[in-house]
Amino acid sequence: MSIVIKGVILNGQKKDIFIRGNIIQKIDDSIDLLADSKISGDGKAAIPSFINGHTHAAMTLLRGYADDMHLQDWLEKKIWVAEAQMTEEDIYYGARLACLEMIKTGTTFFNDMYWFWKGTARAVQEMGIRAAISAVFIDFFNKEKAQEQIEINMKLFDERGNFGNRVTFTLGPHAIYTVSEESLKWMADFAREHGLLIHIHLSETQREVEDCIRKLGIRPIEYLEKIGFLGPNVIACHAVYLNHKEILLLKKHEVKVVHNPISNMKLAVGEAFPYERLKTAGVTISLGTDGCSSNNNLDMLESMKFASLLQKYHHKDTTVLPALEAFQMATTNGARAFGLNCGEIKEGALADIALVDLQRPELTPHFDLYSDLAYSGNGACVDTLICDGKVLMANRRVENEERILEEARRCAFDLIRRASQSNG
Amino acid sequence: MSIVIKGVILNGQKKDIFIRGNIIQKIDDSIDLLADSKISGDGKAAIPSFINGHTHAAMTLLRGYADDMHLQDWLEKKIWVAEAQMTEEDIYYGARLACLEMIKTGTTFFNDMYWFWKGTARAVQEMGIRAAISAVFIDFFNKEKAQEQIEINMKLFDERGNFGNRVTFTLGPHAIYTVSEESLKWMADFAREHGLLIHIHLSETQREVEDCIRKLGIRPIEYLEKIGFLGPNVIACHAVYLNHKEILLLKKHEVKVVHNPISNMKLAVGEAFPYERLKTAGVTISLGTDGCSSNNNLDMLESMKFASLLQKYHHKDTTVLPALEAFQMATTNGARAFGLNCGEIKEGALADIALVDLQRPELTPHFDLYSDLAYSGNGACVDTLICDGKVLMANRRVENEERILEEARRCAFDLIRRASQSNG
Repeated sequence: MSIVIKGVILNGQKKDIFIRGNIIQKIDDSIDLLADSKISGDGKAAIPSFINGHTHAAMTLLRGYADDMHLQDWLEKKIWVAEAQMTEEDIYYGARLACLEMIKTGTTFFNDMYWFWKGTARAVQEMGIRAAISAVFIDFFNKEKAQEQIEINMKLFDERGNFGNRVTFTLGPHAIYTVSEESLKWMADFAREHGLLIHIHLSETQREVEDCIRKLGIRPIEYLEKIGFLGPNVIACHAVYLNHKEILLLKKHEVKVVHNPISNMKLAVGEAFPYERLKTAGVTISLGTDGCSSNNNLDMLESMKFASLLQKYHHKDTTVLPALEAFQMATTNGARAFGLNCGEIKEGALADIALVDLQRPELTPHFDLYSDLAYSGNGACVDTLICDGKVLMANRRVENEERILEEARRCAFDLIRRASQSNG
Repeated sequence: MSIVIKGVILNGQKKDIFIRGNIIQKIDDSIDLLADSKISGDGKAAIPSFINGHTHAAMTLLRGYADDMHLQDWLEKKIWVAEAQMTEEDIYYGARLACLEMIKTGTTFFNDMYWFWKGTARAVQEMGIRAAISAVFIDFFNKEKAQEQIEINMKLFDERGNFGNRVTFTLGPHAIYTVSEESLKWMADFAREHGLLIHIHLSETQREVEDCIRKLGIRPIEYLEKIGFLGPNVIACHAVYLNHKEILLLKKHEVKVVHNPISNMKLAVGEAFPYERLKTAGVTISLGTDGCSSNNNLDMLESMKFASLLQKYHHKDTTVLPALEAFQMATTNGARAFGLNCGEIKEGALADIALVDLQRPELTPHFDLYSDLAYSGNGACVDTLICDGKVLMANRRVENEERILEEARRCAFDLIRRASQSNG
């Protein structure tokens, strides 16, 4: 299979892009190679598609189900009650809805942590995008529970190949306050042995840090270093509450950090992500949406705007986190964090490409692509999406869209009905 | 002219809505009256269209032209240099682009302050929406300049009727640090005499408050009360830095306040709008986008999300400014502030209605319309827009869209070319 994109704006110049298989084979002013299909780039800009560094895809099912509540009520009375009723089928339908939303907003890769790994993996395989998927690992410091979780993960590891090469198996220790030291150590070892990524929520709230100090006498990052957990394969999500020593430890071990500005603001974590301090230290910072219970969408362009404006507001400085850096967080930095040969449109890279429709009022007059994307546009500006050399959306149409929406809707309302019954 | 909208979701129930002329004549389960045109409401929700409480419409021309700069550099080297080159024709093309963007994101009214009043008024008249438009009044404490501005405003006041009944003439004193006491008093009197609204930037930055105290010994709101400026016809935009006494003064005089969360964050004003304190005092709070140089779009749904999340973040409280209140700021409160018979869909109200397309991934599963609109959707969710009983957008298509974009683009690049030349 080959595709040629004719006359598209790439880095400010009109170019042709030739894709063979799943690779960008050639970029030039004019390419006359015969291709199986041809896409007009007229009035469009080609950008690397987005990399969503942290989400819980199937939580689309709970979008808008419980907002504006106190955190503990929200978790105990709503989220956990609904999650207790979820089946692998629910996860499949929810993750498929998430994939559809991501495709429609220009994202071709997401880093996931949730229940029923296979449900999400099936959805990703079918929908044509990429994901690093972890099963949530929570043992609540209970040995039996830990053993059960380890077995689940070893089994999933063995079966991971059944879901194609766009699905990557990763380990997902939920957080240091829900997973025992023994289990964290087991995961660090297992990941090193098998070359796996580890996806963890880390230093999201002040309470997490204070509890850690009270219990162990040291801060979360110090604790994880002490037990040999940190490494370049660790994806630390949130990382809001960090002191200087912790930032240096993250850099020393080349830990990758994912910022989720909308979730941090909506869940009122109380601090701004230390973007400048992490950047100065040279830590790789990528961008995530978090799940739809705390955002409530998967639109990476919206997350760029929130990321940039939160920093400007917090630091009282209009120059912090400029548009281009926000864009890089969502593309090149994400690719670096997850070891993906994409995040830039260049010869030899994976053909993961979004075409932005420049014929939109909010992108007019169009002085600067990055300003327009980060500050003015949203996911609806994406007209065409290519992942792994296949066109997943053309003219904003995705195959089977109505059916995916209808099945997700039915599944979500049925889930909430069961949750309400179980809750008396 | 009459329109019937069949089977649309209104406040959670399927309804028919019958519009005659520019008024919603009837809402019922099923209406069999013969209408000139019929709109299917299938898969759509009807909501009052949005009221943008503060913007500078023609600044769409400068969208993305200068971002991430220090405030003073940005103003002196970019914005003012470009503005110095603007003509009435530029304003017309820029305001027309703004109207198009507003139509495409569900807004039918905006409150404007900018140069070349007639350029904006012509655009609004043509595009079919409503606006309260003021000419920026700046005298820099110079008597001659003040007299010139007064004459311009009196002339515009006389000519205001030439632009149809959707255009309202208002007075636009820029701010207390750019307009003399005499001019402010003249405007207060002229407005009272002729029943006009007054649109002013007020207490946006700490510097504004400190300068006022240094110069006059009192705070901005105290000053405006002292000179007899405050009243129910005053639209105070930003109102970020307010002490308790000032909030009580705003309430006492029934001043209307407009919050612009995105602009406040992007321009790093350094504080969060005192939403809870103003709400508790009973002040009418509406929502604005501000101009495209400091936002950079006119999407009221995005502004709702920023408004709510900024409060949650600032107060470390997930329950502040819930979705419904954000929606009300953009609809009912706006209507109250500007004395409009809209902001709610009910019999006898103006037929200013947006139909939201519920068949979108980001609005699925759809448990709560207000959560979905404020936290998950954006302006692209609006499928159909009716203003003053006329359909301005159907199936996301607006008449002459391509031409409006093309002419605005040409105009903006030509403006920047002239500005660059003038700037050496």
